[in-house]
Amino acid sequence: MNTRLTWITLLIATQAFATGSQPTAPETAGNSQRVGNAAQAAALSTEVAVEKGGPYDRVYHPENLPSMEDGKHFPDTWTSLGANPAHNAAFELTSGAPAWLSHGVEWKFAEARSWPLDRKEAFDNPVYGERRGPSTQTQFYGNAVGVSIANGVVYAESDDQFAYAVNARTGKLIWRTSPVGNTLMGTPVVAQGKVFLSAGNVGFNFSNVTRFAKTKTAARGEGISFNGIYALSAKTGELLWHYGTDGEAMPTAAFSNGKIYITTGDGYAQAIDTQTGKPVWKTELHGMANMSSPSIVDSKMYVAMSSPGGVFCLDATSGKVLWKSNIQGAEDTGIGDVSPAVSNGVVVMDAVADAKQENGKTTMDTRIVTYDARTGKILWQASMGRGAKPPAFKGGVPMIHDGVVYVGTPVNNVIQAYDLKSGQKKWTWQVPDASAAGSGRGAPTYYKGALYVSTGEYLYALNPSSGALIHKYHVGGRFGIVNPVIIGGTIYLSNSWDWLLAVPLSKVNPTAKS
Amino acid sequence: MNTRLTWITLLIATQAFATGSQPTAPETAGNSQRVGNAAQAAALSTEVAVEKGGPYDRVYHPENLPSMEDGKHFPDTWTSLGANPAHNAAFELTSGAPAWLSHGVEWKFAEARSWPLDRKEAFDNPVYGERRGPSTQTQFYGNAVGVSIANGVVYAESDDQFAYAVNARTGKLIWRTSPVGNTLMGTPVVAQGKVFLSAGNVGFNFSNVTRFAKTKTAARGEGISFNGIYALSAKTGELLWHYGTDGEAMPTAAFSNGKIYITTGDGYAQAIDTQTGKPVWKTELHGMANMSSPSIVDSKMYVAMSSPGGVFCLDATSGKVLWKSNIQGAEDTGIGDVSPAVSNGVVVMDAVADAKQENGKTTMDTRIVTYDARTGKILWQASMGRGAKPPAFKGGVPMIHDGVVYVGTPVNNVIQAYDLKSGQKKWTWQVPDASAAGSGRGAPTYYKGALYVSTGEYLYALNPSSGALIHKYHVGGRFGIVNPVIIGGTIYLSNSWDWLLAVPLSKVNPTAKS
Repeated sequence: MNTRLTWITLLIATQAFATGSQPTAPETAGNSQRVGNAAQAAALSTEVAVEKGGPYDRVYHPENLPSMEDGKHFPDTWTSLGANPAHNAAFELTSGAPAWLSHGVEWKFAEARSWPLDRKEAFDNPVYGERRGPSTQTQFYGNAVGVSIANGVVYAESDDQFAYAVNARTGKLIWRTSPVGNTLMGTPVVAQGKVFLSAGNVGFNFSNVTRFAKTKTAARGEGISFNGIYALSAKTGELLWHYGTDGEAMPTAAFSNGKIYITTGDGYAQAIDTQTGKPVWKTELHGMANMSSPSIVDSKMYVAMSSPGGVFCLDATSGKVLWKSNIQGAEDTGIGDVSPAVSNGVVVMDAVADAKQENGKTTMDTRIVTYDARTGKILWQASMGRGAKPPAFKGGVPMIHDGVVYVGTPVNNVIQAYDLKSGQKKWTWQVPDASAAGSGRGAPTYYKGALYVSTGEYLYALNPSSGALIHKYHVGGRFGIVNPVIIGGTIYLSNSWDWLLAVPLSKVNPTAKS
Repeated sequence: MNTRLTWITLLIATQAFATGSQPTAPETAGNSQRVGNAAQAAALSTEVAVEKGGPYDRVYHPENLPSMEDGKHFPDTWTSLGANPAHNAAFELTSGAPAWLSHGVEWKFAEARSWPLDRKEAFDNPVYGERRGPSTQTQFYGNAVGVSIANGVVYAESDDQFAYAVNARTGKLIWRTSPVGNTLMGTPVVAQGKVFLSAGNVGFNFSNVTRFAKTKTAARGEGISFNGIYALSAKTGELLWHYGTDGEAMPTAAFSNGKIYITTGDGYAQAIDTQTGKPVWKTELHGMANMSSPSIVDSKMYVAMSSPGGVFCLDATSGKVLWKSNIQGAEDTGIGDVSPAVSNGVVVMDAVADAKQENGKTTMDTRIVTYDARTGKILWQASMGRGAKPPAFKGGVPMIHDGVVYVGTPVNNVIQAYDLKSGQKKWTWQVPDASAAGSGRGAPTYYKGALYVSTGEYLYALNPSSGALIHKYHVGGRFGIVNPVIIGGTIYLSNSWDWLLAVPLSKVNPTAKS
């Protein structure tokens, strides 16, 4: 019974990069290599280690694909975490959109390691505790970040080792695939009819543990399963190519101008040609990728790294580092967790900072810093308030809309609004149902006069001018670093309990206009 | 479609152990706690995070169960790595055994992340290299160690997150289940109609990376998915109970006298009641579990730990440490990788030791040491020879048969034989087809006048008196820390390419008597 097996054959690029090589590049903070023609010309055949017909094999239900009519009212690409460099994942309906899109839909899709939504405690909470249980489930079982949507299809990566494509209207499965035995912690990027997954997890092997003790640097993900970018057909989930990386590729990738941009656990920023799966350039930034996803604006790549921490601006065409900065007093793992938001020539970052030991407990502040996108010069900075050191992901992903920065932090469980230009704090809203593991990690979403926040077990609608709560809606489970994605009358989400969710906007905000 | 979900409900023990608690116990090297009646009486209901009908849900094919007649000629329990404390996993046929058992059977069973057996290179070898590629596949995709067999069923744990039960005669699947999203790196232990899985992987989270840099200790597996022991019905694979642990439970567990014995990545030895799933005792040994599996003999538990390294003898009833020893110059991660073999009152251990830096490369010796099982006094020790530092698992699992120790090492790719009593070296055999990642990790198996070794792509039959090669048989793939399991005329194996295999003894040794 077990001998009639076949495997998917595909072409991947030969990777011409020696591990640990560090060519000198005195003009920049990092080292950029442009891959020559010889390396690009070489290619080799390989397969994916998946039993045909087994549990990890791709399933495909073409009958669940959206109709052309439904699909055409959605965005047709999804280029980064939070949909765009400003991280505002909201899309108004185009004219002639069908009624279901403005009314909104409601469904729940259970992923492979789904945990009942009505359970307040994470799996094995009695063993791992109120703070570590939920963060373990976020990092290894559920969806660490939010979904992407293109052409009527909701795409999600899950730590359960699967990627999913689900019909946005019906919540029915179109395809499910697991081309690599690793956690998938990002948002799938969609462009050119392809979906790009980033594979990697938070673990270090023992060699890197001892290496860090000696040198304070380590390659995260090295020898911890197989890492890299997997390009699939957006329609069928079929694997088109994969690009293996030595360190983890945990963060969500970014797409721009025919290239996929990633950072990796061995300290590199990399650009990959989306047609060939071959590397275009690779620049050593040192440190390691945490959960900071790149934002690409005007042919520049903005991203943060951890250990050592830093905020980087690279030329997206050449990989050359244009500027590097930091946040004073930042925990370097905190800064590398946050994806920079970019709008109007301003880069917004934050990081947990200024750790203090008091009565045997660690407290921290969260520092928000803005930079001139062109020069890296600090424009203004502010303190978001002190609280207990949060577990796992330590920042809040900032979002910019109409000249205002909206950002949360799990340190003291607040959402705040700042004027993008002046840095003036407009308001602070305290998350009323904060969990022991902390709240406020995902970017808020602005849509038609209201601000939407997904954190803990709830969806909240706030008045963006005052921070006043308009309404809250109980979902259950737990939202990790999740931004609400709004398409007309529906909010699309994923969570740490391994669910994909569609919630009508009207349930979260009874006064909403879709 | 996604709302009609049910989950398996079961009872697990409330765990009364506070993380990091260290009660004083001045009389022993470690701290032993006996769990009181209050903690044992408490129980709570919990579920497993698995979508019903999804890819991780249990499948069960009762039509593939062995017949009573076939099953009764097999062992009915499997209590530890290598079947017994001597690690000789060979079983002669009982009288009246059917012809197929003496003739032997041949089949190949592809597990969920199986990689074609004819591929010499591991998945993504061009990225990870000849040494790290295979060890990554061994640690995260395939079967790290060998199989267990009871009552006509072959049981295996795979890093692919599934446990399997396969009919020993036909190679057909009886059940497959994945109650926890973690690698399963051990051999399933079978007793009392139950199968006991140990869940955990080699990773450390960043908190433990920084902790190790400060204190030279870390809890492996903490915050790296969910760890512990999972007890299943041997017949159906249904989950009966699970016992969550904070550190990883990578090594194969051991069964004795109604208890399951494990060591964990947070430095504890633990005993769990097999009927209730409740802890009986927990003793802090410090350091962390690597791949050393306990051997239980005469109510004593023998096991090794890493970082800090050590060989321990505990009272299996109380958890009290009776003696502790070490191997001079041992790499502490090497010593914690090896499962002690015990026979005739002698404990046999080995570890890579005496690291030297020469021309920028690290070389090592492998030191074999024997202890008086009662006192821990060193009886004799020997050097197995110098070679390059091997990746990942660094030792060879020793096997004892008829007063002779058989043991290999990946350092210089040899198998050696020593007189158990005198320590006299009888012979050295050089593995002729050693891989770049090293050979000789799994225990050899003695059966009816021949010695069987599974390493690299091959099965070998040796003359146990001289070490002369009788015959070799090409299987393909790669054997990790795998001992051949011999039942009459068949050798049962699992490998790093994620396959279960049955090979007729006659193919490996044309002169064999089954």
